[in-house]
Amino acid sequence: MVKFSVKLLDIAKRGVLLNRLDARSIGVLDGDRVQVINPANGISAMAFVDTTSTIARQGTAGIYAITNERLQVTDGGGVEIREAGRPASLEYIKKKMDGGRLSKEETLTIVRDVVNDDISPAELTAFITASYINPMDMDEVEHLTRAMVETGEQIKFATKPIVDKHSIGGVPGNKISLLVVPLIAASGLKIPKTSSRAITGAGGTADLMEVLAPVEFSAAEVQQMTEKAGGVIVWGGATNIAPADDRIILQEYPFRIDARGQMLASVMAKKYAVGANLVVIDIPVGEHTKVPTMQDGRKLAREFIELGERLNMRVECALTFGDIPVGHSIGPKLEVMEALRVLEGAKEPNSFIQKSIALAGIAFEISGKAAQGTGALMAQDLLVKGKALEKFRRIIEIQGGNPDVTSNDIAPGEHQFVVNAPASGYVIGMNNQSLITLARIAGAPHDTGAGILLHAKKGTPVKAGEPLFTIYADRSWRLQKALEEGRRLMPVLVEGMLLDRIPSGREF
Amino acid sequence: MVKFSVKLLDIAKRGVLLNRLDARSIGVLDGDRVQVINPANGISAMAFVDTTSTIARQGTAGIYAITNERLQVTDGGGVEIREAGRPASLEYIKKKMDGGRLSKEETLTIVRDVVNDDISPAELTAFITASYINPMDMDEVEHLTRAMVETGEQIKFATKPIVDKHSIGGVPGNKISLLVVPLIAASGLKIPKTSSRAITGAGGTADLMEVLAPVEFSAAEVQQMTEKAGGVIVWGGATNIAPADDRIILQEYPFRIDARGQMLASVMAKKYAVGANLVVIDIPVGEHTKVPTMQDGRKLAREFIELGERLNMRVECALTFGDIPVGHSIGPKLEVMEALRVLEGAKEPNSFIQKSIALAGIAFEISGKAAQGTGALMAQDLLVKGKALEKFRRIIEIQGGNPDVTSNDIAPGEHQFVVNAPASGYVIGMNNQSLITLARIAGAPHDTGAGILLHAKKGTPVKAGEPLFTIYADRSWRLQKALEEGRRLMPVLVEGMLLDRIPSGREF
Repeated sequence: MVKFSVKLLDIAKRGVLLNRLDARSIGVLDGDRVQVINPANGISAMAFVDTTSTIARQGTAGIYAITNERLQVTDGGGVEIREAGRPASLEYIKKKMDGGRLSKEETLTIVRDVVNDDISPAELTAFITASYINPMDMDEVEHLTRAMVETGEQIKFATKPIVDKHSIGGVPGNKISLLVVPLIAASGLKIPKTSSRAITGAGGTADLMEVLAPVEFSAAEVQQMTEKAGGVIVWGGATNIAPADDRIILQEYPFRIDARGQMLASVMAKKYAVGANLVVIDIPVGEHTKVPTMQDGRKLAREFIELGERLNMRVECALTFGDIPVGHSIGPKLEVMEALRVLEGAKEPNSFIQKSIALAGIAFEISGKAAQGTGALMAQDLLVKGKALEKFRRIIEIQGGNPDVTSNDIAPGEHQFVVNAPASGYVIGMNNQSLITLARIAGAPHDTGAGILLHAKKGTPVKAGEPLFTIYADRSWRLQKALEEGRRLMPVLVEGMLLDRIPSGREF
Repeated sequence: MVKFSVKLLDIAKRGVLLNRLDARSIGVLDGDRVQVINPANGISAMAFVDTTSTIARQGTAGIYAITNERLQVTDGGGVEIREAGRPASLEYIKKKMDGGRLSKEETLTIVRDVVNDDISPAELTAFITASYINPMDMDEVEHLTRAMVETGEQIKFATKPIVDKHSIGGVPGNKISLLVVPLIAASGLKIPKTSSRAITGAGGTADLMEVLAPVEFSAAEVQQMTEKAGGVIVWGGATNIAPADDRIILQEYPFRIDARGQMLASVMAKKYAVGANLVVIDIPVGEHTKVPTMQDGRKLAREFIELGERLNMRVECALTFGDIPVGHSIGPKLEVMEALRVLEGAKEPNSFIQKSIALAGIAFEISGKAAQGTGALMAQDLLVKGKALEKFRRIIEIQGGNPDVTSNDIAPGEHQFVVNAPASGYVIGMNNQSLITLARIAGAPHDTGAGILLHAKKGTPVKAGEPLFTIYADRSWRLQKALEEGRRLMPVLVEGMLLDRIPSGREF
């Protein structure tokens, strides 16, 4: 145990910076693990070591910002540092690598070490990779779900039912929560919806809602607002609900993997932790989504339902058409405009409206609000009568936004370019991934006005020179970049009906 | 592409530190990958982003020391930064996760990205984990070996044969290179021996040799010194030979894994890169080593031989007894003393001498220096006649050490504690791992005088109060800590011959 005086380092990372000579004397190298103790409050934190010859003098330890969120030392204060032992988690991760099955306690130990930063991103990646290759069985998935719940905050409502809804993603423009949540809340059911920001997409539900109101709230605030307004749409990352999940998703990101067991646990832990007992899950099925075939979709649905039963939650899944974008808009402000227009009475786009009322209808049926087969009608009725708009305004208000906002108040990016059909024909293909990439290059989700508005969808006829889609950007250089890339990406394909021409007079 | 002025950060890590607002504007988050270009020399480097609000002002980019070893920018100079694409390696790693087999080109791309730091430690860990769970076949091992060689420096000697020797490790006190290398060089054969520092052990061969002479040399220096002296014993990490291997080993370390394919490639790449065409491999077999049974040892030996054939190298393996330490000493100075004493003429310890001459003897036989079955005798002769000592002094001299050093000049740690037998009986057990842990707690390998000297080995009788082993330390608090832990670790077990007592008069 060696004493150091503290130099706070405003670098948004975990770790400790030691003078090279001090590190040698403690017996650690760059990247090794040490225990840092704040003797003033008794708090200790694991930290990984960086070394320097100049920035920290001998006897001084630099403490990075995220590690100090935990330690709470002051600049010039004192800490004690010692070589840290090897966390038990590493044994359990090794066990998973070797094809073993993890117990409840072993899983909880790993998840707790993830949340406390006691294992490194690389060590967490080993766990994720091992669980991807040696898939978890349903017992392990249940352990992981419960561990994710237990290592974060939980909401306990006084009354049931509590409804929740989740889309497993992979489809651009999937703004349905902006309709489904107000619809469900308008029926008198409670829905404390936590959602994500985009990682690989052009806008997560939280990015969309943030156009209209703040989305960062504590778990206690989520509960209070839901009690008052019937529903909320907030960013899950701010709540400390199932915090392990964000870390896992971050490490999966480079490989674009979404291991089945982790995905099941991720979704259900967040629903369980907000107190939901009725859950509707949207599983988009399509060649370019996470679920390529109906058969895969049915299997995944059965797994969600089984996991739900183990957790005393009633789950119903909807397999939805995922081959093309939902509605016409991709990108935060464009999607919000489209959603507001529908709430204000627009009868289009049909794909967006039908999907939203179908999912809300399932919630009405499983909660007993509507008889079997009549849920969608009830949802349609709430939409047409303006009850969903009224409720959405209440939700915007309780989150601190302007409840009088209308679709006309939302201004998408001022820099625009209309891409026209090069020839007459039919829209024969839309590439979801290319559409998302193009929206991101244009600046979405960070530039909220950036995105894509589709004028012609798959299967519709277009004439040469008619608009196919418009690219929006908040910054002109972003638009420029999107135009350059757009030529290569070809997100929308138009082809004539004449597929081949047989020379006249040719013999068959 | 955004321009920044440079602030050099003396922190021994890779990466770039951006102001939070600049990072948002480029569209990157903490941990994202950017391309940093030095316009002055055209060099570009991939870097991972940390963010700050204060340490780098807007428009300024902090460049960490290891990234700048590549970029070579000056403080106050300029760099350009842009969002970086996703390296192709990640697709190939994903392919390995999915059970695919990697081609030569795919493997080379991954290894090149590892060496250039274009993939993160977590991404490399995913590759290692995937290759551990989905083992490489011999084609993939050959690809990996060649890729490791091609991405580092290589030595090409004008004449053959070039001999090399490797122990796959797992046995404490395995100082045999200090005998084997001088023996082989004394015969007139050339042996450019690169070795490692301890990661989990109490002293690698490089740590031992450093007691006597510098060990950090470039590949060109290794070649020149070998041409002159016949052999060297240097630290491989300084040579830039097969540099990918060090990165891989570092990421394997937390899980104490040594995936078969990577181990084969790691050993053989280093031998191939130094130009060796005759290789002797020591495979210690025993319950607590990396190779638990003779059957495992034979299988591993066949794989080394096959890989050698693919690389036009002749390999011979020796399965050796790995259940107890080699010789009596563990820790840099203690092991060097023991090796020097044997070179100076000591007839003990038998285990150390016999193992060393056996391995040198194999080299003599496969090189044609000795007839089949007479290699060990030749080695014995070189040792007894002082030729090995003479050659070792020459090696020490050429590496810049004092060639007149004797075993009496080496002083182990001044703080010592003798652990005595608690009762009369036999030494029935020695726990290799506990011995290594104890030596490390006492300060080895960093404190070179720290370690353990065994007075009674497994199977020998001891009387109560007779010394079992001595713990050495350079610092008194380290000795204290070793004593505390030693009680728990029980590295040496003594038990009476009377295993059970049957009450007289009892019926059977």
